[in-house]
Amino acid sequence: MKVRIGVNGFGTIGKRVADAIARQPDMELVGVAKTRPGFEARRAIERGYPLYVSGAGTPEKFAAAGTKVAGRFAELLGQVDVVVDATPEDIGRENKALYEKAGVRAVFQGGEEADVAEASFNALANYDAGRGKRFLRVVSCNTTGIARAAAVLVPRWGVSRWDVTLVRRATDPGESKKGPVDGIVPTLEMPSHHGPDVRTIYPELPIATAAVVVPTTLMHVHVNHVRLTRPPADTAELVRAFAATPRFQLFRAGDGVDGTPQVMEFARDRAGVGSRLSGDMPENVLWERGVRLDGADAYFFQAIHQESIVVPENVDAVRAMFDLAKDRDASIALTDRTLGIARS
Amino acid sequence: MKVRIGVNGFGTIGKRVADAIARQPDMELVGVAKTRPGFEARRAIERGYPLYVSGAGTPEKFAAAGTKVAGRFAELLGQVDVVVDATPEDIGRENKALYEKAGVRAVFQGGEEADVAEASFNALANYDAGRGKRFLRVVSCNTTGIARAAAVLVPRWGVSRWDVTLVRRATDPGESKKGPVDGIVPTLEMPSHHGPDVRTIYPELPIATAAVVVPTTLMHVHVNHVRLTRPPADTAELVRAFAATPRFQLFRAGDGVDGTPQVMEFARDRAGVGSRLSGDMPENVLWERGVRLDGADAYFFQAIHQESIVVPENVDAVRAMFDLAKDRDASIALTDRTLGIARS
Amino acid sequence: MKVRIGVNGFGTIGKRVADAIARQPDMELVGVAKTRPGFEARRAIERGYPLYVSGAGTPEKFAAAGTKVAGRFAELLGQVDVVVDATPEDIGRENKALYEKAGVRAVFQGGEEADVAEASFNALANYDAGRGKRFLRVVSCNTTGIARAAAVLVPRWGVSRWDVTLVRRATDPGESKKGPVDGIVPTLEMPSHHGPDVRTIYPELPIATAAVVVPTTLMHVHVNHVRLTRPPADTAELVRAFAATPRFQLFRAGDGVDGTPQVMEFARDRAGVGSRLSGDMPENVLWERGVRLDGADAYFFQAIHQESIVVPENVDAVRAMFDLAKDRDASIALTDRTLGIARS
Amino acid sequence: MKVRIGVNGFGTIGKRVADAIARQPDMELVGVAKTRPGFEARRAIERGYPLYVSGAGTPEKFAAAGTKVAGRFAELLGQVDVVVDATPEDIGRENKALYEKAGVRAVFQGGEEADVAEASFNALANYDAGRGKRFLRVVSCNTTGIARAAAVLVPRWGVSRWDVTLVRRATDPGESKKGPVDGIVPTLEMPSHHGPDVRTIYPELPIATAAVVVPTTLMHVHVNHVRLTRPPADTAELVRAFAATPRFQLFRAGDGVDGTPQVMEFARDRAGVGSRLSGDMPENVLWERGVRLDGADAYFFQAIHQESIVVPENVDAVRAMFDLAKDRDASIALTDRTLGIARS
Repeated sequence: MKVRIGVNGFGTIGKRVADAIARQPDMELVGVAKTRPGFEARRAIERGYPLYVSGAGTPEKFAAAGTKVAGRFAELLGQVDVVVDATPEDIGRENKALYEKAGVRAVFQGGEEADVAEASFNALANYDAGRGKRFLRVVSCNTTGIARAAAVLVPRWGVSRWDVTLVRRATDPGESKKGPVDGIVPTLEMPSHHGPDVRTIYPELPIATAAVVVPTTLMHVHVNHVRLTRPPADTAELVRAFAATPRFQLFRAGDGVDGTPQVMEFARDRAGVGSRLSGDMPENVLWERGVRLDGADAYFFQAIHQESIVVPENVDAVRAMFDLAKDRDASIALTDRTLGIARS
Repeated sequence: MKVRIGVNGFGTIGKRVADAIARQPDMELVGVAKTRPGFEARRAIERGYPLYVSGAGTPEKFAAAGTKVAGRFAELLGQVDVVVDATPEDIGRENKALYEKAGVRAVFQGGEEADVAEASFNALANYDAGRGKRFLRVVSCNTTGIARAAAVLVPRWGVSRWDVTLVRRATDPGESKKGPVDGIVPTLEMPSHHGPDVRTIYPELPIATAAVVVPTTLMHVHVNHVRLTRPPADTAELVRAFAATPRFQLFRAGDGVDGTPQVMEFARDRAGVGSRLSGDMPENVLWERGVRLDGADAYFFQAIHQESIVVPENVDAVRAMFDLAKDRDASIALTDRTLGIARS
Repeated sequence: MKVRIGVNGFGTIGKRVADAIARQPDMELVGVAKTRPGFEARRAIERGYPLYVSGAGTPEKFAAAGTKVAGRFAELLGQVDVVVDATPEDIGRENKALYEKAGVRAVFQGGEEADVAEASFNALANYDAGRGKRFLRVVSCNTTGIARAAAVLVPRWGVSRWDVTLVRRATDPGESKKGPVDGIVPTLEMPSHHGPDVRTIYPELPIATAAVVVPTTLMHVHVNHVRLTRPPADTAELVRAFAATPRFQLFRAGDGVDGTPQVMEFARDRAGVGSRLSGDMPENVLWERGVRLDGADAYFFQAIHQESIVVPENVDAVRAMFDLAKDRDASIALTDRTLGIARS
Repeated sequence: MKVRIGVNGFGTIGKRVADAIARQPDMELVGVAKTRPGFEARRAIERGYPLYVSGAGTPEKFAAAGTKVAGRFAELLGQVDVVVDATPEDIGRENKALYEKAGVRAVFQGGEEADVAEASFNALANYDAGRGKRFLRVVSCNTTGIARAAAVLVPRWGVSRWDVTLVRRATDPGESKKGPVDGIVPTLEMPSHHGPDVRTIYPELPIATAAVVVPTTLMHVHVNHVRLTRPPADTAELVRAFAATPRFQLFRAGDGVDGTPQVMEFARDRAGVGSRLSGDMPENVLWERGVRLDGADAYFFQAIHQESIVVPENVDAVRAMFDLAKDRDASIALTDRTLGIARS
């Protein structure tokens, strides 16, 4: 029996999660929901996903735009075991009452406050925390990136102090209204919300985060300095640990990857290789030359593709909630095989 | 018997042309050649394309980067009927001597001067000019976009005057060294080279082009004003003509496509729909609301994806040279079906 | 007797107009008004301009931010002959009732519809139309740029057809919220509103305008093609006409000015030379190599500094309304001398 | 007797240093030197600075561009006591032989290696180290920003650990060739060269720096985390220390300064206020809300205007070399008064 899933919200995250779920052998994508017609709505039809109207949308509005829908969101709710809610920030919380009333479970995104769910989730870091839950929250793109890195560092060497500067993209590549066009905007709130958010997964982690926003659309970049409690022997050991972990992509000196433009070019290049279809980069991206150990101090850059990094995490979240895999590694392996995510 | 093809140069254009050729039933991709190792070189291996070393490269250098090559470019040359040369500007001309000596034909790109080849080529505009040629040149991305539009306008209504302002992207998305970061740089040469280049295909076309470079990586946008000799009845007829032509994509008011960010988002969304794999947009992109007829004066915007628009043209160029299709429309139809290029 | 002036709105345009008025021998800057405290409000104090609170602002709010104001806007209104209204789009029209009630005249900006005033104004083009008016509207930055060029072309050679593509800056340099970050957004409305706006000054001008928005903050660039009725002998004559006209700055081959980054660097370099204080470029900027005559067809690029081009026009507008100068040329000469605006 | 000074290199830094020197009562700007004509060269003439031809330039080339020069650089060398060398990276070192041969002293910029000079210099941090030197090196913009902050923190509270992430501008506003246009490029070298460079001034400072380059032209932003040895009582004390130090500008909540676009708008607004002429921001810029003390851990953002921050430092460097002021504070006070640099 496959778990029956609806995806509510079919924007940047929702459409990718729908594609990912459609490839899982133990899940059935029953339908997706959207409030407004447009090219992203038509994409659902093109891919054969039953499309439902949610929020303030109406079937008439969709019909006027030439898009035939399968019904209203309430009808989708009646056919599913769980909803992945990929609606904009704070809408997920509003939707929760609907899910409770319909008796369906839900996965929320990191734009919601942590208390919307029973637990915050990252597959590598706390897969078991998701088991059997009715409401789970996949942490945001930046928090996911940090949590994965923590899953490498914390169990192996202990972390006594972690500073992260997040250099954040201004907006997504498909958006044209937000800036800045030329300038750097510091997030004056310090520490930024990312540190506390990581502690929804690693409650005791001594992490401090600070953020700036810069005029790029491609990826975030994290600049990390971690004081390790029981450090490894050398930089090479640190690099090997990242390389041996699923969902990490390391670039090496000869690769010709200088920055995020080349990382995303690499991602586009891999589309269609193996099971990898889109031009996404759901892995944490590190540069081997950008990892350094100096005594107990580890330094590394990592680039985070805000559009796709949480996609495999949503799949694993469902799997944990319904106990579909025997353990974390089995779930991750299945997700990654179906999505063409390879370790370095 | 399939035509045996080598692709020389495996960057932005070459890798896309290789993918396209690999999908043609009447062509065989024998191998690709590159001068330097790196992630783009590995991409060839991942896709199963035999990789040869060209230019100043050596198999040893590739081996040092962990990339095993099939041999040197000369060996590839011995196995093919034709080379698609996608090397950087002016290198194609240098390579021509190699092709002549090896007795193979060649398709050059628009970065070369027109006299490198027997004819300049655009499938819609002058397919027959390519038939039987030994050396053919596919015109550049901007010229291809204009030539396609001319193929719609010239035969139907005649053109008595055409002004194009080309708003050019600064560099490709996978590049990080070129600017400008903030600013507009006019191409002071007037008319820009694009007008004369269009006349390698439409010798008498009364076209004047001017260009500026702006800080974007996604697409070029052309702003067109065409005085038609025998104008259509109304804007709708003009729109219908574009919509009825292969390799044109029209967006309508309800589509939610404001500018090039949404166009490329649409392109990414279509990856994997039908035979369309990558996130490219090889079509001329028009907005229905951005087409207007005022008496004999037609105005329209079109967006041109510099990375992919020439890809189907290279395929058709080979087909014309070897007379593989009964006519233009048959070649275009086959190319477009295999690449998932749909008319609007 | 000097004309007593208040400036309502102290943002990008208002603060520059205030500085310009403060330097006029025949005008007195009585005060400026702003709705919100902040660094721009403090700038007024630093320059010794009495600051009044307008709109929804209150003296208490300003006091809380440490800024002492001279009173409310109504008090300023009681002391002036004319207000230069530099408030955001559509607010000017709302304010008009206040001005009428107070019996003061007003100069509005181009963000208002033309019917807010008795006439639309550009000093070079229609200075006399402003004489004695109670309500005058200085046309927007782009329209000002075109009107000035028309003042060169129309009387000398006649214009039988004019196409302008406006490549527009996304937002001003001091703003950080608006985009696009990477992309080109066409203004699908065609012709764009600029053509009709130019005709508020040149009613019969056969001009068609189209616009795109690009990710830059520095300047707009216009790409012009003008069919002249009685063309000059050669390009040189065309260049000489621009160079001989006030408020035109021509760059030549050896100047090292490739695009708008260098134009604004030049502007910053001139700050403090002669009477020129700020880093603005209120002139129309042309490149000699970017001007070309081909028979009756004239082509030229011009760059327009959206922050400052209307500043001298506002000064001349006041002068025309109160008949302070004997004619257009006298007004322009005085304005330009006091502001350090030189012809090429 | 004034110290007679020549400025070699009249680009971004050189032209600003020349302006600054021209305002010093104890210095005489004898002339400036440039290798190529262009608008920046003409700027020297406009300001009345005798212009000499240096490097590969010739008086004939300048004459051809309509710029009359006063002579060759060797002639300038014969009339000065000291040269401020603001030539491009690594050229300063080549020039040193000329200065030695001519028996003149020299101030080099931070683009040169530290061993080009007898000491590296920052006015706040180590003014006395410059006294009597023949060859002094003013550290680079980023290092200057850090050294000034160190001058606040080190003597008051001691620094036991300092992490800086430098978010660097891609290129200067007047430049149009360099990128990236869209993307973030990490400086993979870790620590970046800035940390070691700071130690040319604070030899024992336990500082680690990492850098990324982002698509902006306006300013760098530093994200700082400093572990203090003997921390102050609270954040307010920390803020007060910055505010009480010359060459620091603090913005507060009500100022409306969100990021670097508003900082530079503020700078442009102050041009012409007091003795401040240009639109520069030679101060370290901090946000009050962007300073936080948590136990012994101090966090703060600072923005650094790469074009101007070293300008007052060059003036003080000359003053130290020739012992023109009684001490550091006297020199800084004079420089800042003449340049309109105010403390917060």
